[in-house]
Amino acid sequence: MVEFADTAPRLAALAIEVPSWAYGNSGTRFKVFGTPGTPRTVEEKIADAATVHRFTGLAPTVALHIPWDTVDDYGELRAYAEDLGIAIGTVNSNTFQDDAYKLGSLTHADPKVRRQAVDHHLACIDVMNVTGSRDLKIWLADGTNYPGQDDIRARQDRLAEGLAEIYAQLSGEQRLVLEYKFFEPAFYHTDVPDWGTSYAHCLALGERAKVCLDTGHHAPGTNIEFIVAQLLRLGKLGSFDFNSRFYADDDLIVGAADPYQLFRIMVEVIRGGGYGPDSDVALMLDQCHNIEQKIPGQIRSVLNVQEMTARALLLDTEALDAARTAGDVLLAHEIFNDAFYTDVRKDLAEWRESRGLPGDPVRAYLADGYQQQIESDRVGGHQAGWN
Amino acid sequence: MVEFADTAPRLAALAIEVPSWAYGNSGTRFKVFGTPGTPRTVEEKIADAATVHRFTGLAPTVALHIPWDTVDDYGELRAYAEDLGIAIGTVNSNTFQDDAYKLGSLTHADPKVRRQAVDHHLACIDVMNVTGSRDLKIWLADGTNYPGQDDIRARQDRLAEGLAEIYAQLSGEQRLVLEYKFFEPAFYHTDVPDWGTSYAHCLALGERAKVCLDTGHHAPGTNIEFIVAQLLRLGKLGSFDFNSRFYADDDLIVGAADPYQLFRIMVEVIRGGGYGPDSDVALMLDQCHNIEQKIPGQIRSVLNVQEMTARALLLDTEALDAARTAGDVLLAHEIFNDAFYTDVRKDLAEWRESRGLPGDPVRAYLADGYQQQIESDRVGGHQAGWN
Amino acid sequence: MVEFADTAPRLAALAIEVPSWAYGNSGTRFKVFGTPGTPRTVEEKIADAATVHRFTGLAPTVALHIPWDTVDDYGELRAYAEDLGIAIGTVNSNTFQDDAYKLGSLTHADPKVRRQAVDHHLACIDVMNVTGSRDLKIWLADGTNYPGQDDIRARQDRLAEGLAEIYAQLSGEQRLVLEYKFFEPAFYHTDVPDWGTSYAHCLALGERAKVCLDTGHHAPGTNIEFIVAQLLRLGKLGSFDFNSRFYADDDLIVGAADPYQLFRIMVEVIRGGGYGPDSDVALMLDQCHNIEQKIPGQIRSVLNVQEMTARALLLDTEALDAARTAGDVLLAHEIFNDAFYTDVRKDLAEWRESRGLPGDPVRAYLADGYQQQIESDRVGGHQAGWN
Amino acid sequence: MVEFADTAPRLAALAIEVPSWAYGNSGTRFKVFGTPGTPRTVEEKIADAATVHRFTGLAPTVALHIPWDTVDDYGELRAYAEDLGIAIGTVNSNTFQDDAYKLGSLTHADPKVRRQAVDHHLACIDVMNVTGSRDLKIWLADGTNYPGQDDIRARQDRLAEGLAEIYAQLSGEQRLVLEYKFFEPAFYHTDVPDWGTSYAHCLALGERAKVCLDTGHHAPGTNIEFIVAQLLRLGKLGSFDFNSRFYADDDLIVGAADPYQLFRIMVEVIRGGGYGPDSDVALMLDQCHNIEQKIPGQIRSVLNVQEMTARALLLDTEALDAARTAGDVLLAHEIFNDAFYTDVRKDLAEWRESRGLPGDPVRAYLADGYQQQIESDRVGGHQAGWN
Repeated sequence: MVEFADTAPRLAALAIEVPSWAYGNSGTRFKVFGTPGTPRTVEEKIADAATVHRFTGLAPTVALHIPWDTVDDYGELRAYAEDLGIAIGTVNSNTFQDDAYKLGSLTHADPKVRRQAVDHHLACIDVMNVTGSRDLKIWLADGTNYPGQDDIRARQDRLAEGLAEIYAQLSGEQRLVLEYKFFEPAFYHTDVPDWGTSYAHCLALGERAKVCLDTGHHAPGTNIEFIVAQLLRLGKLGSFDFNSRFYADDDLIVGAADPYQLFRIMVEVIRGGGYGPDSDVALMLDQCHNIEQKIPGQIRSVLNVQEMTARALLLDTEALDAARTAGDVLLAHEIFNDAFYTDVRKDLAEWRESRGLPGDPVRAYLADGYQQQIESDRVGGHQAGWN
Repeated sequence: MVEFADTAPRLAALAIEVPSWAYGNSGTRFKVFGTPGTPRTVEEKIADAATVHRFTGLAPTVALHIPWDTVDDYGELRAYAEDLGIAIGTVNSNTFQDDAYKLGSLTHADPKVRRQAVDHHLACIDVMNVTGSRDLKIWLADGTNYPGQDDIRARQDRLAEGLAEIYAQLSGEQRLVLEYKFFEPAFYHTDVPDWGTSYAHCLALGERAKVCLDTGHHAPGTNIEFIVAQLLRLGKLGSFDFNSRFYADDDLIVGAADPYQLFRIMVEVIRGGGYGPDSDVALMLDQCHNIEQKIPGQIRSVLNVQEMTARALLLDTEALDAARTAGDVLLAHEIFNDAFYTDVRKDLAEWRESRGLPGDPVRAYLADGYQQQIESDRVGGHQAGWN
Repeated sequence: MVEFADTAPRLAALAIEVPSWAYGNSGTRFKVFGTPGTPRTVEEKIADAATVHRFTGLAPTVALHIPWDTVDDYGELRAYAEDLGIAIGTVNSNTFQDDAYKLGSLTHADPKVRRQAVDHHLACIDVMNVTGSRDLKIWLADGTNYPGQDDIRARQDRLAEGLAEIYAQLSGEQRLVLEYKFFEPAFYHTDVPDWGTSYAHCLALGERAKVCLDTGHHAPGTNIEFIVAQLLRLGKLGSFDFNSRFYADDDLIVGAADPYQLFRIMVEVIRGGGYGPDSDVALMLDQCHNIEQKIPGQIRSVLNVQEMTARALLLDTEALDAARTAGDVLLAHEIFNDAFYTDVRKDLAEWRESRGLPGDPVRAYLADGYQQQIESDRVGGHQAGWN
Repeated sequence: MVEFADTAPRLAALAIEVPSWAYGNSGTRFKVFGTPGTPRTVEEKIADAATVHRFTGLAPTVALHIPWDTVDDYGELRAYAEDLGIAIGTVNSNTFQDDAYKLGSLTHADPKVRRQAVDHHLACIDVMNVTGSRDLKIWLADGTNYPGQDDIRARQDRLAEGLAEIYAQLSGEQRLVLEYKFFEPAFYHTDVPDWGTSYAHCLALGERAKVCLDTGHHAPGTNIEFIVAQLLRLGKLGSFDFNSRFYADDDLIVGAADPYQLFRIMVEVIRGGGYGPDSDVALMLDQCHNIEQKIPGQIRSVLNVQEMTARALLLDTEALDAARTAGDVLLAHEIFNDAFYTDVRKDLAEWRESRGLPGDPVRAYLADGYQQQIESDRVGGHQAGWN
């Protein structure tokens, strides 16, 4: 049996990137509810992100989304974040909200639209050069709604061409991270629907092109930890977008829908070398707090990842290997579950306190006054959202 | 073999209700694209609906959605529609866009919110009394996103109470039609997720409470024609919301995703007595034309229902019964498919022309000038949408 | 916060019925693997079931399946079981293995086949009268593989007729429990595919007809705890068939695929009055140990139910109600999860020992020698399976 | 508009391989029903396959499954088939029915079991060398049922090693075709669950390793025609296993569940160069006729593929390209559907007759006497099945 104390040192390596947009309003096509204290500016989003880090020590970077987070001076923005104790991380492009993109962006039949989409990514790289971001993350909403609407094969070729042009502009330290998604907003076919498609494009691009795995972007029943293991084996897992789901891309708090799945994912991440100081796999959140409080929602999220990482680190791999070699199905399953069922919450609280952090970050945040402050300060203006 | 000519008289009974909101803009949480010519007012929506009927003879009624279609004088609106040759049909309530409904409406833990939701429905009945509408359709977005968030059992009891109060206010000719939906916008549990739940509530309410079946509101793989057959058998099928889907509630054009399924549904509708002058089952559309033209999209939709109804009427039920009695699986399947594979389009075109309608309503519409007219007329103002 | 000690007394009420067929061989259509020590006779199955009870104190009854468990003298069988410290529970009928049932049983187009199926159930009631069983459980494999193959509406009427004849033969203490299943072995339509259908038939039959919920018999994504809550509310939940699944009706060990779901189900069982001495809801296992050891598999299964029941009993319902009333989504979710994440295993071990049971029933069984004994004794003969 | 007459010449290229096991009995884990006339020997299976070809002209080759089709002299078997007018096609290996394979074959933790599995494939290649088969098809049942049961990453490495050893033994004309499957018989993880995994292994192996796409082996909602297009684009589509499904791997008659999907697949096959004399993509059936007659079931299957191919060839690609370039969603969809909705059955019947084949192969077969003959001849012996 592995003890918490033995694993604690490895826990210190955990760093989770939070998305700037999680602090803005989000919702469904039916309604976007507002909430008191929601940021109106990029700076306010970054302040919230820094607050999550202050209470948890887990969220040292914040991802930007362009154009939602467009500012005049990215150097200033970078300095602003650093003053608050965090860094700017991944830059996410947006090719789904301009009217031109109604029928696609990098895959559009019209070369002018594809040009616009490529140029947008080149502009994102310009931002990265200033913010010091390593990763350009591309999630494409491209797809079609009706059979026959467009040529799905030709769209792959157009996509490959556009990606190649973008990739060519990256500097030697930068990476292109290509996300896949099963469906939505396209309802018949999606141009990057599965890890295989993302992998094939990344292979064609080169070494600094990697796959982004969003845990909510799969068909029902998909074994996600298998994909994690496979992509790590192939050297092509670039980053995670963590969230959880019961149905589709629900974007709920990571670990909320199926904590056991999150455990299994973290086990494979660790098993495959995707965790720790030597790994370049980025762990990010991508969630929507439609009805719950946003900052506490983000705190809960990073804590969920931390708790499951702690459990995964408890796995007695030696005993497990012995059971597997013996073909003892039930014993192997039991050893695996021993780690999952171990309640690490008290140990983690103590460990946090030993590092100068609040033992219960949620309670500490609620008691702190930050929430009350932003609710009274952030009055007027336009609350940030997905536009 | 049944001939088209033999079935043509029964085709005349087909009437499909179109939703006012199909003519406004719709989209996903990622983007709502605008289109030239989109209505700005209820009257413009009704004019578009009347145009669909003018070219197809299939859409004699239009459903309203309150408050999207709120007007000062519903008597005037009724007269306006009638002048255009159509009637106002079902009234749809909305309990998902007021800020109060963030955590529910008829099921909300707070009695004040439940009161507001009940009152909204009573106001809808007031509208119905003026418009002459028979059906009050209730689709509830109510549900929760996180396990433990609320008491799912208590919510059922609250729901039953609210529905009873609404039902009590209906006049003897009016009906309450309760729609169910698998998920969205709630992502953990939905308060009316399946036909069983809707059926149980309708049973408790009384004879004029019926189930609304939206063809896009089921779990993956659900056999929808079975539910049609069952609800007709139980005397509780009130109406359809027709659309099609590949994944979730995609709200695509009916018949676009799986035409064979639409055929099977129409076969059961006819088989179970849900079709024709003696049936009170309402056939409605509920779709979103996110990327395609809206009026041609609606024309295509009602034509799809007509084509599949024509095929279903071709079914040689006598030969089929014989094959079934003989236990001849392949022959029964083949007889069934003979009807589906018969190309009725030419016959239907002639039949339409014999009734003074254009043989090809889509081409006729595109050649007519209506689209150009509304695109040049409807400039300025606020295009209608889901708000 | 609720303490384990406070809930322990309620734990004593837990009783889980095990199925005789879990001790026989099972598999997929691809292969049924044999295992040393597998029972050859009904008596050997019952001995294994009694062994599970001896080590856990949780499995006081064993369900029979007719004709797999056919014996000449059911009175003797009853006495045999009672001598081993357990009782005979539910009787399960089988209408899927006789050649006559190829195209259906109670729903078959041919009245002779329906007669045979009804008679089989009457014979099962005869067995129940001797064994003292309360429940006749009917799971129907009936359905069709091809659209058009048979009249799905007529099959409902035939089903209703057959069930009524069976129900009429039950004595006043006996119940008919009707199970539903999404699909398999039928691949186009199933005659009792969902809880709504089972509920509608049970309503028509009368008070002693109840629904059986098999946790593996739903469409992907179905919220099972909602159905539990609804059926308890409607007074129609008769029994559970517990197992777990990732894909279809995988029949894995209950709690193995999604422990959090099992927790949520037990919470609703308790919430809705389905747990404890005053409830008549039967908790049964229905699993296949295709590749793992069978008796330890059953021990693990009943322990999983016990552990999740213990967690569910820890739920601080008072604090939860307060959070729900306040609309505090995150707090309610956290209180809910506090119970789930509490590691009850040590407390349960002590509690077992205080009741004269082994603290770790799995280890105790493995150390006991029973397994070795049956492996050396049960040589020759025909290992029991699904035939 | 394209006319049937223009496309007829291309139809002649259609050749569909039938599986020997389709003529034997199959079923579910619940029951395998026997049928009169079922073959008892490999020769009888081949005779049935040749009969399908005789009536349709569509099935010139038959696939073998080793060891189900083991004979002493494969040269004799080849001559026997050729005498009947067909050739022996793909050789399918079996690594799921030997007791050694309970926990895996090429991925098993025990090197001795892996050795056995590799050797079995080498033996299959020996068969191919005699039968003149081009393709060795590998479908692996390998996987696990319980989280933690085995190391899913290590299993990939073992798999790669085993495949490499097998691949190395192929002659220059032979190919290895690796099939993927979502789930079943493994219920937690499958070692080759998706096209991405199969693709990655084929890439590592070399040019003569290709992916086999079974149309029933995907998660619910998966867009299969996209995968077809992608694999053709990547040059890695080796073959199809055609069948249809509503739920899981139902193995129904191809085109029976969703004819529109089969149409879309054939459109992409043709679009991507996977059809016709210059293509090396093998079109095979892999179905189970559990309840329907087997030979007529196979005839219906190849006709379904032929009918959908004929429709797909009718596609007016020029008009379609124009509509797509114009971004006219509805027009492109309509042009696409024009081909699908065209009833080609009469034209096909005439075309068949012009080539000396029966216009209605199903009726011709039923009238022929072959079925009566085999039913009276094939009495006694052991009907062939999956063992």
